[in-house]
Amino acid sequence: MDEKIRLSHGDGGSETHQLIKNVFYKHFNSSSSDAMPDSFVFEAIQGRLAFTTDSFVVKPLFFRGGNIGKLAVCGTVNDLSTAGAIPLYISAGFIIEEGFSIEKLHLVAKSMGDLCNQIGTKIVTGDTKVVENKNADGIFINTSGIGRVSEFYNPRRAEPGDEIIITGGIAEHGTAILIDRYELSVEADLISDCAPMCGLVVGLGSKLRDVKLMKDPTRGGLATALNEIALEQELSIEVMEESIPMKSEVRAVNEILGTDPLYLACEGRMIIVVEKGFEKEVLQCVKTLDYCNQAGIIGQFVSASHTMVYMNTGFGGKRILPLLEDRTLPRIC
Amino acid sequence: MDEKIRLSHGDGGSETHQLIKNVFYKHFNSSSSDAMPDSFVFEAIQGRLAFTTDSFVVKPLFFRGGNIGKLAVCGTVNDLSTAGAIPLYISAGFIIEEGFSIEKLHLVAKSMGDLCNQIGTKIVTGDTKVVENKNADGIFINTSGIGRVSEFYNPRRAEPGDEIIITGGIAEHGTAILIDRYELSVEADLISDCAPMCGLVVGLGSKLRDVKLMKDPTRGGLATALNEIALEQELSIEVMEESIPMKSEVRAVNEILGTDPLYLACEGRMIIVVEKGFEKEVLQCVKTLDYCNQAGIIGQFVSASHTMVYMNTGFGGKRILPLLEDRTLPRIC
Repeated sequence: MDEKIRLSHGDGGSETHQLIKNVFYKHFNSSSSDAMPDSFVFEAIQGRLAFTTDSFVVKPLFFRGGNIGKLAVCGTVNDLSTAGAIPLYISAGFIIEEGFSIEKLHLVAKSMGDLCNQIGTKIVTGDTKVVENKNADGIFINTSGIGRVSEFYNPRRAEPGDEIIITGGIAEHGTAILIDRYELSVEADLISDCAPMCGLVVGLGSKLRDVKLMKDPTRGGLATALNEIALEQELSIEVMEESIPMKSEVRAVNEILGTDPLYLACEGRMIIVVEKGFEKEVLQCVKTLDYCNQAGIIGQFVSASHTMVYMNTGFGGKRILPLLEDRTLPRIC
Repeated sequence: MDEKIRLSHGDGGSETHQLIKNVFYKHFNSSSSDAMPDSFVFEAIQGRLAFTTDSFVVKPLFFRGGNIGKLAVCGTVNDLSTAGAIPLYISAGFIIEEGFSIEKLHLVAKSMGDLCNQIGTKIVTGDTKVVENKNADGIFINTSGIGRVSEFYNPRRAEPGDEIIITGGIAEHGTAILIDRYELSVEADLISDCAPMCGLVVGLGSKLRDVKLMKDPTRGGLATALNEIALEQELSIEVMEESIPMKSEVRAVNEILGTDPLYLACEGRMIIVVEKGFEKEVLQCVKTLDYCNQAGIIGQFVSASHTMVYMNTGFGGKRILPLLEDRTLPRIC
């Protein structure tokens, strides 16, 4: 019989200890017997550190291409990557609904541990809380992370002419969630792009000198992320519709549903702003890296009297891409 | 009319931006207009750093002596304090239920910002998610923290004869939550002990050399924390019942309810293990510090064939204090 989470798993007593030992220690410290302390202590290193946090409430918890655990580690690793940082240490805070399957908890924790092993980072501290039935939705996870910032990365203001790269096809995560949440009968071979982007920081190496900023297009998708960049940089952005990588399955599903893939989340993509003149060599390098073989230049910064993001469409027209105003898909991450 | 949280406040678009700006930036950066980035970058420092995380699901959200926001900052600051660390940077991740009052969100965020100002730390990065009505319980908060470990603090194994200090009266937080959750008509002038303990690290200064370990008795209370210490140190602990500081109101309320204050949470207390022979000067110093004037020596480590925690009662008997087995009060933090 599938054992369930009880309130007593969260009261700090012996059942909490057993749960932490049997599930979290098992999957997070596969190669050692180190216990996770309330506070993890480490020797500081020279240089710059990055610190980030994200809470995850994705629905459904398991989706094509991942689950909330994998997503939680990727999300925090990718936030560190936007700062040019390699992940050093990750924390994991769990809020679990009474009655949640312990077997599923194992699957979630295993995904987290496996991914950390894969990218050479570690979950070093954690916390587990349990709330009553109907006071949460299965499981929520917070991951925070500390990373070491590459010596080569010095983010700076964009200027007109600077080029914009996206590392792969857009909207695959958002579309995968849509399909699974509403149990659409789609035969498309489409999974979430959920992936860790830290290989980009390592792989670009000294070429990070030519990168002015990075941003991962998660909630609100590519269009929202570009708007945030444009506002921050006080410049307009022009993108070419036909240069935006998008799988035909993504296009087809979104056409059927009437959703706009430009506003649907990616969870394994990065927007890279490259100093004018260096875009080709940066792109060439990016395309050789994991999860990045579909990378392409999608647009550039332009000066304009009003800060905005617009797209040159395949039909020769211009479409303004506003900051998301309407309610779109909730709980995609 | 009190405005409510909508799902669109969590979709990453313009309403999310407005909420973050109007509520979180306002209370977290009161003295500056710095925006909170996805990743916060800082220069590493010499020495050791501590990293910790905690999620908070306390019920009710507002209680005598505090609210979930104050508790979240205190909890993470206190976890850092147990590692001998002064808080440098705090992150805040919010999971908010659709329909939650924005006025209450202001109160929670203000408590967090005010407390950070008071202790000289800062919330530097954050995240906001919104889930549908009945998919959470008002608001859940995760705080993670990075602290600088005192050069004087070198935790080490306890030995028989080492003394145990508690910094103040026990069970005040747990009892306050009990009173407010069940709306008991108690006239007692009792509030949660919820408080930041980082002043202890600063105040003890070089006397931290004589401290072997620290632990905050939160979930499961003093008895559970002592059991965890005993297990970890593979030693028994003997405490004297009459030396444990406890307000008469705490005693009275727990007698009426049939609850055991030894197992009820503190959120502004610290257990300090001091090397034998140094307990008096450490205690003398501790008693001068904020939130610590009721500090006292409550027991010591003893060698025994079985690791256990026992209490010499006021009646001349011995009572074993086991690791919490039964379900006690859920959601006290």
